[in-house]
Amino acid sequence: MSRPAHRRPEYHKINKDLFVLTYGALVAQLCKDYEKDEDVNKYLDKMGHGIGTRLVEDFLARSCVRRCHSYSEIIDIIAQVAFKMYLGITPSVACNNSSRNEFSLILDKNPLVEFVEELPAGRTSLCYCNLLCGIIRGALEMVHLDADVAFLQDRLKGDSVTEIGITFLKKPDEKKYRRKK
Amino acid sequence: MSRPAHRRPEYHKINKDLFVLTYGALVAQLCKDYEKDEDVNKYLDKMGHGIGTRLVEDFLARSCVRRCHSYSEIIDIIAQVAFKMYLGITPSVACNNSSRNEFSLILDKNPLVEFVEELPAGRTSLCYCNLLCGIIRGALEMVHLDADVAFLQDRLKGDSVTEIGITFLKKPDEKKYRRKK
Repeated sequence: MSRPAHRRPEYHKINKDLFVLTYGALVAQLCKDYEKDEDVNKYLDKMGHGIGTRLVEDFLARSCVRRCHSYSEIIDIIAQVAFKMYLGITPSVACNNSSRNEFSLILDKNPLVEFVEELPAGRTSLCYCNLLCGIIRGALEMVHLDADVAFLQDRLKGDSVTEIGITFLKKPDEKKYRRKK
Repeated sequence: MSRPAHRRPEYHKINKDLFVLTYGALVAQLCKDYEKDEDVNKYLDKMGHGIGTRLVEDFLARSCVRRCHSYSEIIDIIAQVAFKMYLGITPSVACNNSSRNEFSLILDKNPLVEFVEELPAGRTSLCYCNLLCGIIRGALEMVHLDADVAFLQDRLKGDSVTEIGITFLKKPDEKKYRRKK
């Protein structure tokens, strides 16, 4: 169900630590359930997809973003509005190809791993934050944009930054992906 | 590790919907994993216990609560400071017995169930928010207070309010439960 826009922002806020620790419990549970890291990653992505499809309507209502005319604009909205609204951070953005459909979100800090010092033993292929990829994928799908979303680098795996790659799979159709009135 | 007190509150805030939906995914996963509602409840409580033991140090550092001299004072801190800080709500408090060790937190609204209209089919004994009981139990344990914490009423089960019962299991020992300097 849709909800009224312009509610007081503070009403929507909760303490981050509670979320971060609850997310950790979710990942730990999936690691118990699935032996292979790939399966955990897949499942986190799937869960995130479901969350993204539910968040997007509220996001559009509250953020009041205007129609986007390019993938670049969409990426900027994700980085500057959505990440800021939901996680309190603003990743930097890079475009990775000349046809301008491959982008990276580069996270200097990642609140989701604040209590995580390293990946669990024997879980070297775990994409701990893969829920985020699923959320982005699900939200984009709801505005009729198909995208591959995956971690390209991860500080938890020893990389110098955490980087989420987003590849749009087809040209945006103006009529399709614009926000419905 | 402890962290400095008095950080900017906004830094600690994230969007509630993301947390609420992620929590829903966690409960759904546990319902897949455990056939019996009692086992899901137990597991949510256990997970919450782990989270409570980790949250409490930061809570004490940031809330700057003073030493409590009675169970009533402790309950007031939980309702007015902890719930407000972590979930943005302030439950009302009731004392349920003359020896003043049994209390209720009464939640007029419960952000954790904002996207939940009813319990999943066949899950009539599920305590959907049992993580909260575990968190309270774990946090109290860390300040050397043993307590039984359980849902006494739940709007998701058709009750008129949601009520968490907290029963302290022994008299507080001033030396034990006060916050360590």
